[in-house]
Amino acid sequence: MAEATTTLRPLPLTSERFAPFGDVIDAVPGRSGAMNEARFERHDDLCDIDVGDNGRVAVSIARCRTPTILPLRIDKLERHPLGSQAFVPLHRQSVVIVVAPPGESFDVDDLRAFVTAPGQGFNYRRGTWHMPLIGLAAGDDFLVIDRSGTESNCEERMLDEIVMLDPA
Amino acid sequence: MAEATTTLRPLPLTSERFAPFGDVIDAVPGRSGAMNEARFERHDDLCDIDVGDNGRVAVSIARCRTPTILPLRIDKLERHPLGSQAFVPLHRQSVVIVVAPPGESFDVDDLRAFVTAPGQGFNYRRGTWHMPLIGLAAGDDFLVIDRSGTESNCEERMLDEIVMLDPA
Repeated sequence: MAEATTTLRPLPLTSERFAPFGDVIDAVPGRSGAMNEARFERHDDLCDIDVGDNGRVAVSIARCRTPTILPLRIDKLERHPLGSQAFVPLHRQSVVIVVAPPGESFDVDDLRAFVTAPGQGFNYRRGTWHMPLIGLAAGDDFLVIDRSGTESNCEERMLDEIVMLDPA
Repeated sequence: MAEATTTLRPLPLTSERFAPFGDVIDAVPGRSGAMNEARFERHDDLCDIDVGDNGRVAVSIARCRTPTILPLRIDKLERHPLGSQAFVPLHRQSVVIVVAPPGESFDVDDLRAFVTAPGQGFNYRRGTWHMPLIGLAAGDDFLVIDRSGTESNCEERMLDEIVMLDPA
């Protein structure tokens, strides 16, 4: 018997659509204040960095070495039970992400795919299931803001189902 | 009597030169690990985010509205006594910064100027004196990672001396 295939078509990332999963990090016109004698407009406090009680905030750079070619079969999702994890593109690159709400597990029906606008970052709330980060071009950098600590902070769930991520 | 002019010529920013003032945030070859089945090289934990005991980490975007034209007379420096402050360029833009070591005050002789390589970020240690952020092109964004809290966290010192920042 042929196995059913689920195909995820990414939608443009917006704060409203992403609310169950975390925060969108971008500079939205009209929500800003001035800074340094109005030389800058400042968009303040765009995401909830959560490292729990015993964590430190770590700022890292992830540089794409092997680009991912779409469509892609998604074989697993992961979550970080002890803290949030933010990614901000440093080459204004777009990326495709797949998420499911925080919880012990998830169903394939819970999966949502998003494509970021150039420059948009995103912050996964603590426990949000997500596809491991992919990059679409070699050399592209992401700034990562997450939790550093001694405890294990990554859980994976392999997908038995056939789930395709296909932006076409 | 003519007043003496101090001219600061920015040097390229390196971790070694910046050590008294904070951290350089960049991806240096050879200091990385692999991530996500080697699709990425990860440069971990590049700076010390310090928000003290009662602070939250805030992630913001500062967008340059009015570019600064160099040479520039520097009229003041500021410091944040309660936490660190990091800036990461989101358009790979270079910028010029001026700093003096943490302390109650500083002398003009203590001032150092640096120019960042494209994509380099920097993190001012708690209390490091610095020129307020400038941008060299309108529309350029910086990601800012600093402290959010109810206490006052910015002190300024006006410069009586004539200090010019001149990359020429």
